Amino acid sequence: MEVKKILLNESDMPKYWYNVLPDLPNKIEPPLNPATNQPLNPQDLERLFAKELIEQELSNKSEIEIPQEIREIYAIYRPTPLVRAYNLEKALNTPAKIYYKNESVSPAGSHKPNTAIAQAYYNKKEGILSLTTETGAGQWGSALAFAGSMFGLNVKVYMVKVSYEQKPYRKSMINVWGATIYPSPSNTTNIGRKILEKDPHNNGSLGIAISEAIEAALENPNTHYSLGSVLNHVLLHQTIIGLEAKRQFELIGEYPDVILAPCGGGSNLGGIALPFIRDKINGKQVRVVAVEPQSCPTLTKGVYTYDFADSAKMTPLLFMYTLGHNFMPPSIHAGGLRYHGDSPIISRLYKDGLIEATTLKQTEVFEAAVLFAKTEGIIPAPETAHAIKAAINEAIIAKEEQKQKNILICFSGHGHFDMAAYDNYLSGSMQDAEFSDELIEKALKDLPQIKVN
Amino acid sequence: MEVKKILLNESDMPKYWYNVLPDLPNKIEPPLNPATNQPLNPQDLERLFAKELIEQELSNKSEIEIPQEIREIYAIYRPTPLVRAYNLEKALNTPAKIYYKNESVSPAGSHKPNTAIAQAYYNKKEGILSLTTETGAGQWGSALAFAGSMFGLNVKVYMVKVSYEQKPYRKSMINVWGATIYPSPSNTTNIGRKILEKDPHNNGSLGIAISEAIEAALENPNTHYSLGSVLNHVLLHQTIIGLEAKRQFELIGEYPDVILAPCGGGSNLGGIALPFIRDKINGKQVRVVAVEPQSCPTLTKGVYTYDFADSAKMTPLLFMYTLGHNFMPPSIHAGGLRYHGDSPIISRLYKDGLIEATTLKQTEVFEAAVLFAKTEGIIPAPETAHAIKAAINEAIIAKEEQKQKNILICFSGHGHFDMAAYDNYLSGSMQDAEFSDELIEKALKDLPQIKVN
Repeated sequence: MEVKKILLNESDMPKYWYNVLPDLPNKIEPPLNPATNQPLNPQDLERLFAKELIEQELSNKSEIEIPQEIREIYAIYRPTPLVRAYNLEKALNTPAKIYYKNESVSPAGSHKPNTAIAQAYYNKKEGILSLTTETGAGQWGSALAFAGSMFGLNVKVYMVKVSYEQKPYRKSMINVWGATIYPSPSNTTNIGRKILEKDPHNNGSLGIAISEAIEAALENPNTHYSLGSVLNHVLLHQTIIGLEAKRQFELIGEYPDVILAPCGGGSNLGGIALPFIRDKINGKQVRVVAVEPQSCPTLTKGVYTYDFADSAKMTPLLFMYTLGHNFMPPSIHAGGLRYHGDSPIISRLYKDGLIEATTLKQTEVFEAAVLFAKTEGIIPAPETAHAIKAAINEAIIAKEEQKQKNILICFSGHGHFDMAAYDNYLSGSMQDAEFSDELIEKALKDLPQIKVN
Repeated sequence: MEVKKILLNESDMPKYWYNVLPDLPNKIEPPLNPATNQPLNPQDLERLFAKELIEQELSNKSEIEIPQEIREIYAIYRPTPLVRAYNLEKALNTPAKIYYKNESVSPAGSHKPNTAIAQAYYNKKEGILSLTTETGAGQWGSALAFAGSMFGLNVKVYMVKVSYEQKPYRKSMINVWGATIYPSPSNTTNIGRKILEKDPHNNGSLGIAISEAIEAALENPNTHYSLGSVLNHVLLHQTIIGLEAKRQFELIGEYPDVILAPCGGGSNLGGIALPFIRDKINGKQVRVVAVEPQSCPTLTKGVYTYDFADSAKMTPLLFMYTLGHNFMPPSIHAGGLRYHGDSPIISRLYKDGLIEATTLKQTEVFEAAVLFAKTEGIIPAPETAHAIKAAINEAIIAKEEQKQKNILICFSGHGHFDMAAYDNYLSGSMQDAEFSDELIEKALKDLPQIKVN
């Protein structure tokens, strides 16, 4: 019987995260203070983030030690299995080998706890008592609620109101871990109250939720803000995915030819790919592909420039691929991929040709998700299904070319809280978003005009 | 850093199930044909069950080989981890060590696939094309849907209508795996139509759903019926849980002092405990405790006699502990434990003092579930939370006595599809069922009167 799951023992769990910053062939532009358009001082961030996280954000050390307290909580679900998708391969009749790194085994059901646990730990260590954050689809909010409960921190989650109402069980999950959740806009912040005054039925947006979470952090003592993607320290914490996967490939004497991950803010893509990109910078052959939804094609159709991370323009300016901070992507079920920008690290690597990008339509993504469930058993999150569909496409090419090829997917999360999306697909009423480049052109007009040296 | 998860490699997965029948100190009474009250012929069962399953039901072999085709599907999630609940121990400040065997890692989220995969395999091998079954809360229906998709079998699930409406996402999950699901009573069977004619708004019951599933199997060619608990072959397949757990305890040089599992039909209790009960029969010290809900106390308050397995009296008569086939337990969230009877094997072992039983109230069970989620991270199914609460009680006694003790829990499933129950608890509106012994006395009057030699 061939081995399906390549496992690591806890003693083989990486003791260091990998920081790609010093290895980047071209450095990333610094974040700017939105008031002055000048590079941000690290001190500017201290009211919102723990000092050790700010240090990591700007660090030039390649290896950053993972404290034992974090590894003890990681051990609840890590190391995660690297799984060979034999049944999917058989169904596709492909000579390619398909592997998936199963991050869905965490208590919150996705890769998000990898950074939530780290962020909770460093904040706790600094004496912080509460964390605030926003969440769209709910994956990040539940991950931080879980991490907060592990370290005895109060967590306040601002969840986009339309999702709060559509996905009541993410809210329940967050409550079970003891966190407080507000539909955003809420009447607990000035920003929220102002919006509700004008428009009592406002459905909310990620931009508004970010603004409320930041205000709630600033207004309360011993309270910090926490972000689940985009930033360098978030990708750093996620590199444990790729570091484990590399060891697992070493155990079977293989190496991936192509790595595929869904890409919204870029944290699971960065997490699985950066340790392999380190090899690539050193001459190794490996393709890395960011898989985007057709309706939010940040890398494939955005521009590389300074922009705000949120639509309310409260955040620092980040140099990244962006569709414009006012871009409103059509509503799709992969809520985690509906983000106008992208991680500065991922953006730089894409610009420099070290990462490719591709887009997929929602219906073909769900077709792939159902095939995966019927062959490999696990029901994927809609975000994850983007990588699955892209892997199927790669496997079909391998079949046509009769070429052996190792495909690695980041299986970022399960779909247990996305079943309404599956109902929509199986009922035949799912449609691909009406989408035109004009939408993007319009949003790009609002980009801040900042000269880069 | 101490090891949290004791893992086995796939090559260490048991190659044989353990059959307790030849080792039982007192044999179990044979099932009776309800038409004649005479012991059932194995041939009587062939219209509904695969021959190899019937053989297993009556086998006198201690070890039954697990075919490679089954082990290949098991490998999707097996061997499952044995996890040390360090954080829960710390919260309780107990000298006891608490271990949980995590069966929630299967694609369907519970231990149920252990037998669903086996049943699908043997039926497929015999040329069967379709399986029918009933489901209450949905755990079993989704497990069989998953297993059916692995072997290309059509699966029809009759789900108790009130649950079908309350838990729409279990239905979605079943659909994703390609199975068909009907709210029961349905208009697809004579029995269902007859009930709907009299009472169009009938909410259904497990008894009615069993009757519909059996009728659907009998009325269609190449179709068999499948049961998810109670029967000997079901417990046989589940022994892989305990066989793995034994090896995992051997790896750390320990042995459990007490084993706790929720008990409805008895399959996860039998699964984890029978391999240890084999040792106990041979003189080893180990306590095994069935944990029942206060509102359905089959072992603790039922009688040991012949009774029907369903309320519609379509099934053979089983000799077991029962509250009477007409017993209607008060509605609780642990739907998987609302069964009037119990596995004949578990019943015999309880009668012979090899298994103890205890009952718990719903609110104390949910209090324990939330404590578990906040310390160990994973949100348990309400059924599973019964074992957790019982383990906490054992750990508190150990603390009072300042005694070291190894506690083993069967973590039978996660609660991702039970979040409404958590909402009910956290909102403070959950109540313990009003319950009186009169309910039982009344139901016991309907027991069939059969003399046993």
